[in-house]
Amino acid sequence: MMRRHIFYVLVENRSGVLARVAGLFSARGFNIESLSVAQTNRPRISRMTIVVPGDDKILDQVRKQLSKLVDVHEVRDFSMEARDIVDRELVLCKVKADAKQRSEIIEIANIFRARIADVSPDSIMIEVTGSEGKIEAMFKMLSPYGILEAARGGHVAMARGMHNRVDDEESNAA
Amino acid sequence: MMRRHIFYVLVENRSGVLARVAGLFSARGFNIESLSVAQTNRPRISRMTIVVPGDDKILDQVRKQLSKLVDVHEVRDFSMEARDIVDRELVLCKVKADAKQRSEIIEIANIFRARIADVSPDSIMIEVTGSEGKIEAMFKMLSPYGILEAARGGHVAMARGMHNRVDDEESNAA
Repeated sequence: MMRRHIFYVLVENRSGVLARVAGLFSARGFNIESLSVAQTNRPRISRMTIVVPGDDKILDQVRKQLSKLVDVHEVRDFSMEARDIVDRELVLCKVKADAKQRSEIIEIANIFRARIADVSPDSIMIEVTGSEGKIEAMFKMLSPYGILEAARGGHVAMARGMHNRVDDEESNAA
Repeated sequence: MMRRHIFYVLVENRSGVLARVAGLFSARGFNIESLSVAQTNRPRISRMTIVVPGDDKILDQVRKQLSKLVDVHEVRDFSMEARDIVDRELVLCKVKADAKQRSEIIEIANIFRARIADVSPDSIMIEVTGSEGKIEAMFKMLSPYGILEAARGGHVAMARGMHNRVDDEESNAA
């Protein structure tokens, strides 16, 4: 089955590990749609979240290959697990805005619970986090004003603690 | 001079590009501290933000090599520019919390303008964005409760629109 897979990979924080992990996907022709990696609260351990669209079976082979790499401590494919996850993206987005349009854009930002990170006489920078659907919806609202620049941070995903799920902010926001 | 460099790299959204870019840093022994990559609003173009500590001169050579790669459209080292940037991280953090501790932890989250992404009988998941300093300060406050898991999304950075700078949320939060 074809779908988007969300991998969680714990690795040694060491030069070359990222290139090897990314290389394993590209060697099989997979294009990484988004990736984020940063240090964890454990020294020398980094955590990656990798989003790759592709076939379940082939990506399961990639997962097994990844888990055999020396510097890889743990690999999970969240998409193949029954457990629910929280999946967020951080986006910075600069929109064209003069004094007249500014308040309209700030209103849109408020609806999406976004924050204003910067403003200039002819632009405004918005910081927003959320699910991909929410971010796409915000882009759609902002694009008539002219999006000058957008930086998406890649997905950050984590399995929910227990089954005692709450409605998170997505359910309440637009 | 040794310092942390923040690279902005615009690339073709194509299999293998990420591995080549990461490989260029590791070939020279640099360890990527954090990286985020995702699609932009332009089709087939991805944007990376890469944080690497290292020597100014050698990293300037790496920047030049990067700009020569076929699939690389633009490279900038924000740390070497006079222009001010907005630099944010997204973090998901799961903290041990029973019913007694929950309100204390929610109070800390509110101070840092964080959001509650999930809750279970014995844990709480917090979603926060901000500068590295803010995130470290929050971790310090939460660690006595027991941090079960933390996922950092890598830096997302963007040059400010003009010199008409506003106090951003960092200045107001704790």
